[in-house]
Amino acid sequence: MPQKFKVVVTRQLIDEAQKLLEDVSDLDVVQWPSEDQPAERSWLLDNAQGASGLLVMLSDKVDQELLDAAGNDLKVIASFSVGTDHVDTAVLRKRNIRLGYTPTALTDAVADLTIMLTLMAQRRGGEAIGKVIKGEWPKMPWSPLLMTGPQIGGSTVGFLGFGRIGQATLKRFIPFGIKRARYLTSKPGQPAKEDHFGLLKEGKIPIEPAQNWEQLARESDVVIIGCALTPDTKHLVGKDFLAKMKKTAVLVNIARGPVVDTDALVAALDKEAIFGAGLDVIENEPNIPADHPILKQPRCVLVPHIGSATIETREQMATESVKNLLAGLKGEAMVNEVQL
Amino acid sequence: MPQKFKVVVTRQLIDEAQKLLEDVSDLDVVQWPSEDQPAERSWLLDNAQGASGLLVMLSDKVDQELLDAAGNDLKVIASFSVGTDHVDTAVLRKRNIRLGYTPTALTDAVADLTIMLTLMAQRRGGEAIGKVIKGEWPKMPWSPLLMTGPQIGGSTVGFLGFGRIGQATLKRFIPFGIKRARYLTSKPGQPAKEDHFGLLKEGKIPIEPAQNWEQLARESDVVIIGCALTPDTKHLVGKDFLAKMKKTAVLVNIARGPVVDTDALVAALDKEAIFGAGLDVIENEPNIPADHPILKQPRCVLVPHIGSATIETREQMATESVKNLLAGLKGEAMVNEVQL
Repeated sequence: MPQKFKVVVTRQLIDEAQKLLEDVSDLDVVQWPSEDQPAERSWLLDNAQGASGLLVMLSDKVDQELLDAAGNDLKVIASFSVGTDHVDTAVLRKRNIRLGYTPTALTDAVADLTIMLTLMAQRRGGEAIGKVIKGEWPKMPWSPLLMTGPQIGGSTVGFLGFGRIGQATLKRFIPFGIKRARYLTSKPGQPAKEDHFGLLKEGKIPIEPAQNWEQLARESDVVIIGCALTPDTKHLVGKDFLAKMKKTAVLVNIARGPVVDTDALVAALDKEAIFGAGLDVIENEPNIPADHPILKQPRCVLVPHIGSATIETREQMATESVKNLLAGLKGEAMVNEVQL
Repeated sequence: MPQKFKVVVTRQLIDEAQKLLEDVSDLDVVQWPSEDQPAERSWLLDNAQGASGLLVMLSDKVDQELLDAAGNDLKVIASFSVGTDHVDTAVLRKRNIRLGYTPTALTDAVADLTIMLTLMAQRRGGEAIGKVIKGEWPKMPWSPLLMTGPQIGGSTVGFLGFGRIGQATLKRFIPFGIKRARYLTSKPGQPAKEDHFGLLKEGKIPIEPAQNWEQLARESDVVIIGCALTPDTKHLVGKDFLAKMKKTAVLVNIARGPVVDTDALVAALDKEAIFGAGLDVIENEPNIPADHPILKQPRCVLVPHIGSATIETREQMATESVKNLLAGLKGEAMVNEVQL
């Protein structure tokens, strides 16, 4: 690099990524000192001045105010995130600033968690743990139907949204002996545009588009929500959808909370209209107090948005963020760049 | 059938099995009236008299006393179970009474649960649910390593015991991107006798015998216990085994509790010598009170022996038990018979 670039990084990074950053001799790195706590806004605004690049977290708002504080040298924002809701892309476009992000790193970690949540919803994982923790096991006489749930083998799995994560999940489901997959994308009834892992081509089981959400709800033993949140998908899984689901079916949401109408889900679980649910996300997260009605449902498992929370994935996201930052400074190709 | 056989059944059975039993016109069926509660011993002894067959649960002891109460017409015991620890097989052999059981029905259900427990141990499932239930989510600031665990992709999975359930588990693990499997049977270093699902032949990943338990403990990122309980396997996973495991590895027990030394496991979790554990079984189950030390370990998940607890599997076990009973009466081949 011909000149010394100032870059601001809003976290301490994980081993390899931190090393990658420190090994570049032509950088003047200003870095928030904590690994756990988000950077204070005032610190970021004060330090952004004169920066050529910013490496930011989901918790850092990238807006007009920040860009003004940075000034005219700013060339690149590298966001350590899959989503870019925290970034005002219109302002970046106007100023010709590039935006890197890390959307592909987390596919496997999220697909793994989707399998975990599906099995927990079917096999009553939360309820089972709860009974043992409360000391109820000694008083549970064995009976043939004690703590039974539906089995994944032979089931139809329905995907709301069928991108990379949905397909990675389906790939994992196949050796569990599922019978069929249905998917609904923004173009109902049409074949999926991409076949990320060759599953459609391989044809081990029928993998077919649903004609509409009603068909997907009606036929599925497992419904996996893996779609983006848009005005069309907000509360797509509400009262009507849940009413069409089988009583033995489970719902799994690993996408965005507001795709599911939480009140409708609580009501469906209350009257046993569906068998159970597994949620990595929920409306109004993380503001879920201990008395939230969803937490009173023994057949619902809720984890705190840990889809991508593996050490390997977070390391890869950190490393890719640094690579995107450096590529932005040098005018080279990023690992993943948002087309503004 | 030439004559009317008296049979005693110690539970109400599930739909299809109950129907199968009731449809046989030549049977005189005496049946315990509850689906949930085990038959009382005195009821069983009183009613056994003159029975040609007994369909019993794991909770019913089949011993000299019961056989004496039944008398000389008894031809068959059909046990609704995988194990036969509750049956005195020596006495059966002496009296030439056949014994049916249901060992194969539950392979898929147990393998499914093994995947669930593995992912929960890696992804901190119990801890994650606990934090949400306690209302801690709102106070958990996001950070790159928050709630992270190891990722299954790229890992080596080690199997202690490599029978049908272990191999069914491995089949499911392959599309998660595991790198290698190791197994230890009663003949260390020798290739597995059976290749139940063609995985060894297929060779998608290296699947190799371990030379000894030390090698398996040292190399595995996931250790799955799926062996029988014998004098050789009791406390096989104790202090020494756990000390050889990787700090990032998880232990999963879906076999029998006493294969693991619980005190040693608690000590290993306490000092973070391993990453976590997922248990379907434990020493002294079901007598695990709320203040049991294992329940204080946030990285350990314990469920109440629900390996085979799916509706489909329990229905199949019930149906097979009835078939075994009828086959025993008619002198025909059983679905699964213990060679006494």
